Amino acid sequence: MKYISLLGATGSIGTQTLDIIRSHPEQFKLAAMSAGRNLDLTRKFIGEFKPELVSVQDKEDCTVLRQEYSHLNIQFIYGEEGLVETACYPKADIVVNAVIGSVGLYPTLQAIEAKKDIAIANKETLVTAGHLVMKAAEDNNVKLLPVDSEHSAIFQALQGENDKNIENLIITASGGSFRDRTRDELKDVTVEDALNHPNWSMGAKITIDSATMMNKGLEVIEAHWLYQIPYDKIKVLLHRESIIHSMVEFHDSSIMAQLGTPDMRVPIQYALTYPDRIPFPSAKRLNLAEFGKLHFDEMDFNRFPCLRFAYEAGKAGGTMPAVLNAANEAAVASFLDGKIGFLEIETMIEKALSRHTAISNPSLDIIREVDAEARQFIRSIS
Amino acid sequence: MKYISLLGATGSIGTQTLDIIRSHPEQFKLAAMSAGRNLDLTRKFIGEFKPELVSVQDKEDCTVLRQEYSHLNIQFIYGEEGLVETACYPKADIVVNAVIGSVGLYPTLQAIEAKKDIAIANKETLVTAGHLVMKAAEDNNVKLLPVDSEHSAIFQALQGENDKNIENLIITASGGSFRDRTRDELKDVTVEDALNHPNWSMGAKITIDSATMMNKGLEVIEAHWLYQIPYDKIKVLLHRESIIHSMVEFHDSSIMAQLGTPDMRVPIQYALTYPDRIPFPSAKRLNLAEFGKLHFDEMDFNRFPCLRFAYEAGKAGGTMPAVLNAANEAAVASFLDGKIGFLEIETMIEKALSRHTAISNPSLDIIREVDAEARQFIRSIS
Repeated sequence: MKYISLLGATGSIGTQTLDIIRSHPEQFKLAAMSAGRNLDLTRKFIGEFKPELVSVQDKEDCTVLRQEYSHLNIQFIYGEEGLVETACYPKADIVVNAVIGSVGLYPTLQAIEAKKDIAIANKETLVTAGHLVMKAAEDNNVKLLPVDSEHSAIFQALQGENDKNIENLIITASGGSFRDRTRDELKDVTVEDALNHPNWSMGAKITIDSATMMNKGLEVIEAHWLYQIPYDKIKVLLHRESIIHSMVEFHDSSIMAQLGTPDMRVPIQYALTYPDRIPFPSAKRLNLAEFGKLHFDEMDFNRFPCLRFAYEAGKAGGTMPAVLNAANEAAVASFLDGKIGFLEIETMIEKALSRHTAISNPSLDIIREVDAEARQFIRSIS
Repeated sequence: MKYISLLGATGSIGTQTLDIIRSHPEQFKLAAMSAGRNLDLTRKFIGEFKPELVSVQDKEDCTVLRQEYSHLNIQFIYGEEGLVETACYPKADIVVNAVIGSVGLYPTLQAIEAKKDIAIANKETLVTAGHLVMKAAEDNNVKLLPVDSEHSAIFQALQGENDKNIENLIITASGGSFRDRTRDELKDVTVEDALNHPNWSMGAKITIDSATMMNKGLEVIEAHWLYQIPYDKIKVLLHRESIIHSMVEFHDSSIMAQLGTPDMRVPIQYALTYPDRIPFPSAKRLNLAEFGKLHFDEMDFNRFPCLRFAYEAGKAGGTMPAVLNAANEAAVASFLDGKIGFLEIETMIEKALSRHTAISNPSLDIIREVDAEARQFIRSIS
């Protein structure tokens, strides 16, 4: 039995992780979970999975739940401290980090110190502090198991291979909601338009990130850290069907790829069962003949400047990716709140980056400062 | 340094194997080789690679070479016995079996007994006597390393994986020279038409086998033995570009695939360097964006009856695949000699199969008898 601590249970990855746990009660048990402010879903999951520890965002919600569930032996906690305690819950063998944004960073570092393997869906953790996370993982001999479909594909393609033989990582990109629109046609798009992703059903923030291509940029930075590959060996390829989830090209010219219908539960399950696989009878099987064609195209950095920003921030290193990420989070929030237009997400991020001078090898405190400062700046101009 | 014994040096796979050896003199040395009747090429390779043992097909050629090279310390031998001695050459660490047809079987078995790892390009060996070869390999703890691009792709996709998790093997097929013709349009095709393969540059026999789809049928049987997978879990998918060389679908719905431009030297090199890879700077890199599209289609068993024959013969088991293979070899030879039309290859094989009753678990002697009998039958009706 594998005991799981799930951070971000009520989000898209969280609920899909619970789907996997639900399908394999003989293998997985939810030991602890954190939720945000969605109490209805939190109650549903408490009833079904009976975790021993539940953390919510606000103190008030915590008090309410404590009273409601006083008849059960469940510990309720809250806030950032609650998130950390959930991440470090002693009984858990593995932590699934499925929170959104850079709030996932500190709990992840604490869980690593507590020798937990981490299934990492929260890419901001590696984007903002990849150097700290990778060092902690190495020092504590814990596994970082990617959950993102792209990084899982690369991880799977690297099984049985020697990392020294990697020539390039090739990350595929569907192109997001607006891939067939020109930049001119992006000026007046609505939040609703942007939330309509062609292939993947995901949360709001990542769907917007897909439309701006910032999601792919964050993935490039994440891949850089996870696989310790320089940026000039990480390529992005437009592949509208999202069937090839990503690839590794080796120096002998062989390319290994992982394919499947777009279903996040597959990489989630793989992270939980790694290095083994277990059956997934309810997954829709890929039938390539049914598709008939798969399409590939060069990525246009002028069409998608956020991807260019990400490469530049990644190469600049230090605190620059943290600024990229924080500015993006704040700008996307402003867009979702109707305060700014879609294309302003890009211009605001660019402004935040250009006013920042990278601090190399930053500590967690410096990253937090820089992160807060960038958010503040974006809010001030939104 | 890895010492190589190469069976079939002057054929297509043979010369490409020598290309690999030539490119990596610090890693590989040709210790022994067998050639057929192409003395010019044999002389060229002797001069360049200076093997210690050379076997040719005919006694007369052997005598000629012995005299010519009396100043060098090279041993010359001939015939089937020579082929076996080459396969078992003591200094060789690995035998590349690149001969054409079922003549490769006995030397392979002998090499396995002599504890040599086998890089196997000669699919007829496994088709005709898979049960004997696999058992010998297991008993002698030797590796069978696939060289066919499809089987190499599957082999690569299985690295780091557990075979128990395989759901299906998916072998891709380009469709061969005539993939866009109807059966009606096949009646009067010439030998020249058939030898014009769209993607791969290969020998004559395998190019005809590609046009009839028998090549894919033999690959299905080969895959059955190499990976110990039942026939109903081996699928064939039409993929005209030959870019995805084959795939493995796991029971969690993940598919791992190996891709590359069509170049047989890549799987040959992989078989020689396995489990490591070494750079292959001269290989043409795959650029999927340049391709733009990859195509996939169902395989039509009515359009390609030889593929159906192969599945049926494989499932019947025993001596039936040996009859399939021998009848095919003889029929293709008759077609190349201009004695029969292209579509008669199929009808003759069908006749040979329908008059044979499978003998289960046959010995090598029985396989040879059945093989000779099937050839004789095809010649008698050609």
